[in-house]
Amino acid sequence: MKINIPESNQERIVIIGGGFGGLMLARKLSYSNYQVVLIDRNNYHQFQPLFYQVAMAGLEPSSIVFPLRKHFQKIPNVYIRVTEVEAIDPVNKRLQTQLGHVNFDHLIIATGANTNFFGNAELEHKAIPMKSMGEALYLRNRILDDYEKALSITDYEQRQGFIDIVVVGGGPTGVEIAGSLAEMRKYILPKDYPEMDCSEIDIYLVQSGDKLLKGMSDEAAAKSYDFLTKLGVKVILNNRVTAFDGEWVTMKDGTKLHAKKVIWAAGITGAILPGLSTEAIGPGNRLIVDRHCRVQGQEHIYAIGDIALMKEDAYPEGHPQVAQVAMQMGKYLAKAFKNKQKGREVQPFAYRDLGSMATVGRNRAVVDLPNWKFQGFFAWLVWLFVHLFQLLGTRNKVMVFINWVWNYITYDQALRLIIRPRIVHPAAEQTTKGPDANA
Amino acid sequence: MKINIPESNQERIVIIGGGFGGLMLARKLSYSNYQVVLIDRNNYHQFQPLFYQVAMAGLEPSSIVFPLRKHFQKIPNVYIRVTEVEAIDPVNKRLQTQLGHVNFDHLIIATGANTNFFGNAELEHKAIPMKSMGEALYLRNRILDDYEKALSITDYEQRQGFIDIVVVGGGPTGVEIAGSLAEMRKYILPKDYPEMDCSEIDIYLVQSGDKLLKGMSDEAAAKSYDFLTKLGVKVILNNRVTAFDGEWVTMKDGTKLHAKKVIWAAGITGAILPGLSTEAIGPGNRLIVDRHCRVQGQEHIYAIGDIALMKEDAYPEGHPQVAQVAMQMGKYLAKAFKNKQKGREVQPFAYRDLGSMATVGRNRAVVDLPNWKFQGFFAWLVWLFVHLFQLLGTRNKVMVFINWVWNYITYDQALRLIIRPRIVHPAAEQTTKGPDANA
Repeated sequence: MKINIPESNQERIVIIGGGFGGLMLARKLSYSNYQVVLIDRNNYHQFQPLFYQVAMAGLEPSSIVFPLRKHFQKIPNVYIRVTEVEAIDPVNKRLQTQLGHVNFDHLIIATGANTNFFGNAELEHKAIPMKSMGEALYLRNRILDDYEKALSITDYEQRQGFIDIVVVGGGPTGVEIAGSLAEMRKYILPKDYPEMDCSEIDIYLVQSGDKLLKGMSDEAAAKSYDFLTKLGVKVILNNRVTAFDGEWVTMKDGTKLHAKKVIWAAGITGAILPGLSTEAIGPGNRLIVDRHCRVQGQEHIYAIGDIALMKEDAYPEGHPQVAQVAMQMGKYLAKAFKNKQKGREVQPFAYRDLGSMATVGRNRAVVDLPNWKFQGFFAWLVWLFVHLFQLLGTRNKVMVFINWVWNYITYDQALRLIIRPRIVHPAAEQTTKGPDANA
Repeated sequence: MKINIPESNQERIVIIGGGFGGLMLARKLSYSNYQVVLIDRNNYHQFQPLFYQVAMAGLEPSSIVFPLRKHFQKIPNVYIRVTEVEAIDPVNKRLQTQLGHVNFDHLIIATGANTNFFGNAELEHKAIPMKSMGEALYLRNRILDDYEKALSITDYEQRQGFIDIVVVGGGPTGVEIAGSLAEMRKYILPKDYPEMDCSEIDIYLVQSGDKLLKGMSDEAAAKSYDFLTKLGVKVILNNRVTAFDGEWVTMKDGTKLHAKKVIWAAGITGAILPGLSTEAIGPGNRLIVDRHCRVQGQEHIYAIGDIALMKEDAYPEGHPQVAQVAMQMGKYLAKAFKNKQKGREVQPFAYRDLGSMATVGRNRAVVDLPNWKFQGFFAWLVWLFVHLFQLLGTRNKVMVFINWVWNYITYDQALRLIIRPRIVHPAAEQTTKGPDANA
């Protein structure tokens, strides 16, 4: 069956993915002379940079995600569809989704990236990724659950498994998680678990390279290492996690760590959809695009953001997979489409690096601006301000701000709740399948 | 194995359930000369009266639940254990839980009540109850999911199944859910789903008796009926839902309603734990207790709240199963235990009815005070104030207040998010089982 979208004489642009890139594109095409269909598996845009704070019980999911429908409420030419895309049919210019198929004149793939376990099935099944809200909440529950269980374990070695945590990946996410775990151990757990000796809790951060925050300046790398070790995080460089059986973590050099929780922030891989020729798929599972974001070998299909692999002279290996690139590509493509209707050409895309930053915790962050690098309290304020500012929606800004102030003043996070999803009986589940189920 | 709780020379009081009754009891026994062990399956106390607002996307779970550990952080004689109780062993004065067993000198059963499907397995599997946060969130997701799906359904009759909702039970919960669904249809859906004809959405409220809010005054009953019908809710009295196959709802009089969602707020039944003699179990699956909350035939086991069936002259059938009774019994029992150590007797428990209230929506509520009954805007303000005031924790009060003001001013609820829990691979699940799994 066909997804029910009103026919119009406007050309139809279908965007897959409401992340930073896809959302920006749809916003910039609002009120334009195109019919825009934005498809996402979620009914909200999620602000990934703050996932780790949800996992650490510092923020509510609702504070860092924003309902897509709310955003486009009054915009006549943008249609939201919440469903999974199953396949792309470039020849017939048609998309197959769980709700049915939809035709397009132009297709923009903004599906982003998934966690990369480098083909290690065991890790994929047992390590905890951080690429979705569901995963962030799962991690929150796991951490709290395991502390509760640890209370009834008298055997030291066995208890270690429940309370120690291994974070894999020295990028911003890994650094931020390790940092806030260390602060949780320092400020919150001793109050919540007076019976527990919190000095027993070990937090490991494993990075395969010889420095943290690869891609940022050496000052940032050194300072973040310094901050983390001061917080008591055991930073392990030049090593890799090779196996994890759910109880023991095995490292490349043979050392073993006893931890039931491995947080995997070690890499991402493009979220490719079936239907495109494999020649278009480059390193890192990214779609090779030209300087106009057009997918190699395709005339009407474009890719932006983490999934796109565009080579600029300054970036021979493609751009870094960060929100900035995605948003700039989204803006660029919107402009290109509008100009097209006016018969105007656009310059090839060129990425403008606005800098990067990461926070380690209270009063501690590192910021690299194109020609200014600084760390510490001011960097932390800048980090807070930039992230607060980038959040979609006034309510979110207000809520996050209140929570941050609250947590800062009280040295506390109020959201230490293990909220378990309702287990649905299979019989009931059927009734939630959707229209095609009744066809 | 044994739950690891420090030995002490204090008598040990074990409380099962951190609801209104159990929490009150533990609070009043803080700093007393008893060792108190509070056991709950959740690590938080939940404020059930506002569940429906979570389901209706008006509030965040975290705003109406409060971490038990946070509440008892500085209290030396109260121990929290988060686990499921499996059985009571009155003879050996011992409790079996998923974390191991624990001995008690005195046991207080404050397990409350579960949804009562009156033995109808089909309804139990397919209707949606409202007795836990997980269920409230599930309902929120179901409602939003189904509206998304409805957009792609061109067939009118089939679409009805996805957008119509049947609420069963004319008590406060049923009335409040039906009311807020009607407001969602009126204020929010037309903005979010401009493509949908919201007048197609039918909201039914089914009540077996001949009036709503049984137990409240006739004025309250009449006014709430009036409010609901004005909001466009189809209130069906003197009828019952007898069957629900996930697609069609069958009523006692044979009429059928097309709805995939049946919200079940039609009754509760005591949450009995195995181990007690069946003679102690009275009507409604409640434990028969004397005027001192002592379970019939038991010397050291007590029951309070929804699970307790105590007969007073004024309440020959037992007390209403509401928070007030549970809290008063909790207070009473704490006093009784303290007096016991002082060798003092306490009077038999006597319930003091402080009145009851329910809200139908914006500016509309009904309040019955012992000698004053009123409805409308002022009643609504009273309702808001009382519920805000009863919430545990300053942060919760602040957050709920902000949300209420926000929703009131914007005619909007910002939390329309379908956040799906992470699906955990069975292999991974093992590692979350807890210590006994490794034994």
